[in-house]
Amino acid sequence: MTENALKPYVIGLDLGGTNSVFGIVDARGEIKATTAIKTGGYDNVNDYVKAAVEALQPIIETVGGIEKIKAMGIGAPNANFYKGTIEYAPNLPWAHTCVVPLADLFSKALGGLPVALTNDANAAALGEMTYGVARGMKNFIDITLGTGVGSGIVIDGKMVYGSDGFAGELGHVVMVRGKEGRKCGCGRTGCLEAYCSATGVARTAREFLENSDEPSLLRELKPEDITSYEVSIAAGKGDALAKRVYDFTGKMLGEACADFAAFSSPEAFVFFGGLTKAGDLLMKPLKESYDNSVMPTFKGKAKFLVSTLDGSSAAVLGASAVGWDL
Amino acid sequence: MTENALKPYVIGLDLGGTNSVFGIVDARGEIKATTAIKTGGYDNVNDYVKAAVEALQPIIETVGGIEKIKAMGIGAPNANFYKGTIEYAPNLPWAHTCVVPLADLFSKALGGLPVALTNDANAAALGEMTYGVARGMKNFIDITLGTGVGSGIVIDGKMVYGSDGFAGELGHVVMVRGKEGRKCGCGRTGCLEAYCSATGVARTAREFLENSDEPSLLRELKPEDITSYEVSIAAGKGDALAKRVYDFTGKMLGEACADFAAFSSPEAFVFFGGLTKAGDLLMKPLKESYDNSVMPTFKGKAKFLVSTLDGSSAAVLGASAVGWDL
Repeated sequence: MTENALKPYVIGLDLGGTNSVFGIVDARGEIKATTAIKTGGYDNVNDYVKAAVEALQPIIETVGGIEKIKAMGIGAPNANFYKGTIEYAPNLPWAHTCVVPLADLFSKALGGLPVALTNDANAAALGEMTYGVARGMKNFIDITLGTGVGSGIVIDGKMVYGSDGFAGELGHVVMVRGKEGRKCGCGRTGCLEAYCSATGVARTAREFLENSDEPSLLRELKPEDITSYEVSIAAGKGDALAKRVYDFTGKMLGEACADFAAFSSPEAFVFFGGLTKAGDLLMKPLKESYDNSVMPTFKGKAKFLVSTLDGSSAAVLGASAVGWDL
Repeated sequence: MTENALKPYVIGLDLGGTNSVFGIVDARGEIKATTAIKTGGYDNVNDYVKAAVEALQPIIETVGGIEKIKAMGIGAPNANFYKGTIEYAPNLPWAHTCVVPLADLFSKALGGLPVALTNDANAAALGEMTYGVARGMKNFIDITLGTGVGSGIVIDGKMVYGSDGFAGELGHVVMVRGKEGRKCGCGRTGCLEAYCSATGVARTAREFLENSDEPSLLRELKPEDITSYEVSIAAGKGDALAKRVYDFTGKMLGEACADFAAFSSPEAFVFFGGLTKAGDLLMKPLKESYDNSVMPTFKGKAKFLVSTLDGSSAAVLGASAVGWDL
């Protein structure tokens, strides 16, 4: 019997600012059992790990005990894959001013189980490669379009971590240089994330509304209530301004992907996250812009795919995928 | 005895538009013998390979015969590493309208010797990793600043070839978007290469001269006679306009490197090629701009290095480095 047959499961932990969701996952990506705790209810990481392991015990028992578990994978903010640490994570009360050796702590608390962690966007990419639309692919770039823009880059079948474990921050390539660039959460200006995230789309809509008197369904909302979802609904109803917001977003994403092609010439770009729900509203201008922008050498080569992993479980699946490699 | 002791040499071929330079190289990067033929004097590739092998025979004999040779590496334009082919190379008469299986042809003509080829910029990166300032590094980006801007990206100790063998075209990320972007040789506009190559520097100087009446030593030259070398000489004499040309070039290169860091977080950027002769004129504004531009996560991490390989033999050494991996 192979090791995978003896130990057919991994634990995935999607560690978010609010909730920590655990799942026990098999090799086909089926989630056998789940549980969750609050992430923020603990002053120090030891209490957090203790509460997590207490919550895990019953679901571990349902699959036959810890000896059936191969490893644990964690997707978390500010995660350093090489060191197994979470470093200065602004949204985690027990890790915002320090470097927390979370992989080691979980490993010790779970009887020496191999544990690895990586950031959420890398976990999403590993999830696509293990269970999703990127199965079998050796070279692809996974782009998460959520509140921010994250990315996971796979080259030659391996996640790119770079010299320090933090590579793959494609949300922070600069798309608008100089003073016109929008402020970004990273402290700089003009980043892709400031335009092509869900919040970026809402920002673009507010700008377009402010800078013209063009009628738009979006004028029925208070500016601060506009979200990327409202913009896609309005565009779906034929609202020209709302449609232009997605054209603008797709165009910029396509130009960014053309630059990414010059870097690693991926077989595919895989998109994941809330903004992908806009469907062709986003994907059509994105592909057009890519075709118009990319170097002739790369033209017509890369596929543009949207994740088919179920949104609610994708993060846990992605985290679990980190575990299969151990 | 190890294989390297039995076969202590590789053949490197620097295949340029005008000359094809061959060297027999040992593991320390010492060139034991060289020869050369014209690249363009042949209508078809079979005649080219025949002439090359005839030229090679005597230098192969000087190191003890073909049985002392481990492999052959070729650095060439439009080279596809995966397929061992040269594809539609505009400057090669025997390959400008077709796909030429050059690695196979050389292998057959040399009694089955393993042969691989890659583009010149990738060969330069392999040269740095094998014999140069990047020895021992697993993650670095080599940037060639010559007539064009080329690049070779090494991640986890391996050259990045991407899904099609053509990855690493960082001279063609877009730095100036929209209509103001300069025309680039690749047919698009705004590429890094259009600004930060030797020809880009000369172009910047001509633009600066045209757009002002500022006195400058460069006004003593006809605009079409200005080269990056003349600009560096003028800057060295304290010419303010010439100095601003290098400030502009370094600033843009630093901003580009900041984006590259977001991709693969390299341990170092290694610069090679004619433009690096400008020394601090280029490197100082480059580093300053990088520090001002890069994401906080990556600040202060990457080294900025200039190649120490001898310019005249670096291309042959780089090509030979492709052979050691076979």
